[in-house]
Amino acid sequence: MQLSEGVEWAVHSCTMLAGLDADQALTTTQLAEFFDLPRDYLAKHLQALSNAGLLAATRGRSGGYRLARPASEVTLRDVMIAIEGSRPSFRCQEIRQRGLSGQPRACYRRACGIARAMWAAEKVWLAELEKTTLAALIAEAAREVSREQKAAIARWLGRET
Amino acid sequence: MQLSEGVEWAVHSCTMLAGLDADQALTTTQLAEFFDLPRDYLAKHLQALSNAGLLAATRGRSGGYRLARPASEVTLRDVMIAIEGSRPSFRCQEIRQRGLSGQPRACYRRACGIARAMWAAEKVWLAELEKTTLAALIAEAAREVSREQKAAIARWLGRET
Repeated sequence: MQLSEGVEWAVHSCTMLAGLDADQALTTTQLAEFFDLPRDYLAKHLQALSNAGLLAATRGRSGGYRLARPASEVTLRDVMIAIEGSRPSFRCQEIRQRGLSGQPRACYRRACGIARAMWAAEKVWLAELEKTTLAALIAEAAREVSREQKAAIARWLGRET
Repeated sequence: MQLSEGVEWAVHSCTMLAGLDADQALTTTQLAEFFDLPRDYLAKHLQALSNAGLLAATRGRSGGYRLARPASEVTLRDVMIAIEGSRPSFRCQEIRQRGLSGQPRACYRRACGIARAMWAAEKVWLAELEKTTLAALIAEAAREVSREQKAAIARWLGRET
């Protein structure tokens, strides 16, 4: 099983957007250039983030994307679901109902125990992802990113360093 | 993101094999017939379970697959990794090193904080899957499966009911 590379791109894009000044926004082209990512694929993922309400698109000359909520209110779970969708990764085909021991549908009152266990574990995974906010990732990166990298980002954003 | 349907097939096949008498085994064809699954796809997944050491293949006239370990020592994590592989579902492309703020590789002493958080959550998911054994699933199914279904399975296994 593999998560879409879009999850990584989306989290990086969101943390970048979280650092903008109040009147700033970044276009898809700018973000693609900054991260050296293929513009069209990135556009698809940014659109998904926007559809999920995590990004807001602003129009006009300095238009582009901004984070729609404070970075402390956006979690890795939010971003993953925006990109991957909210359907569970385990999909029960009800094979217990098929084949030689299958019984009429009415005999099955609860979801299959296998599916219940798989879904319960997946909920725990999502709950864990919910514990990490963009704000926490940004704070951690601020401690780890080199002075040179911070300066490069600030220059690119048109700030004095 | 979607888990392979093989995970469901594999868990059902393993719980079926766990119920066999000591001298019994089931072939791929028998399991495919029992669950009404496409034989060739199922064969691939059973082979993966065998490669992971979860199933043992026996030869001879009554040969086939058996569970290689007690059902209390096989977990949903074991089965999922056997089918899906052990690589994390989140793959870090190190996009922080690319693009306009990328620095020489030596500047990055730790894995990216985003990847660390994603991997940590995935570990929690796997740890949760590890809590559920085949034995627990079988015990639960025994309470829920109807008398008709138990009888159908026993007949198919050649047991008196």
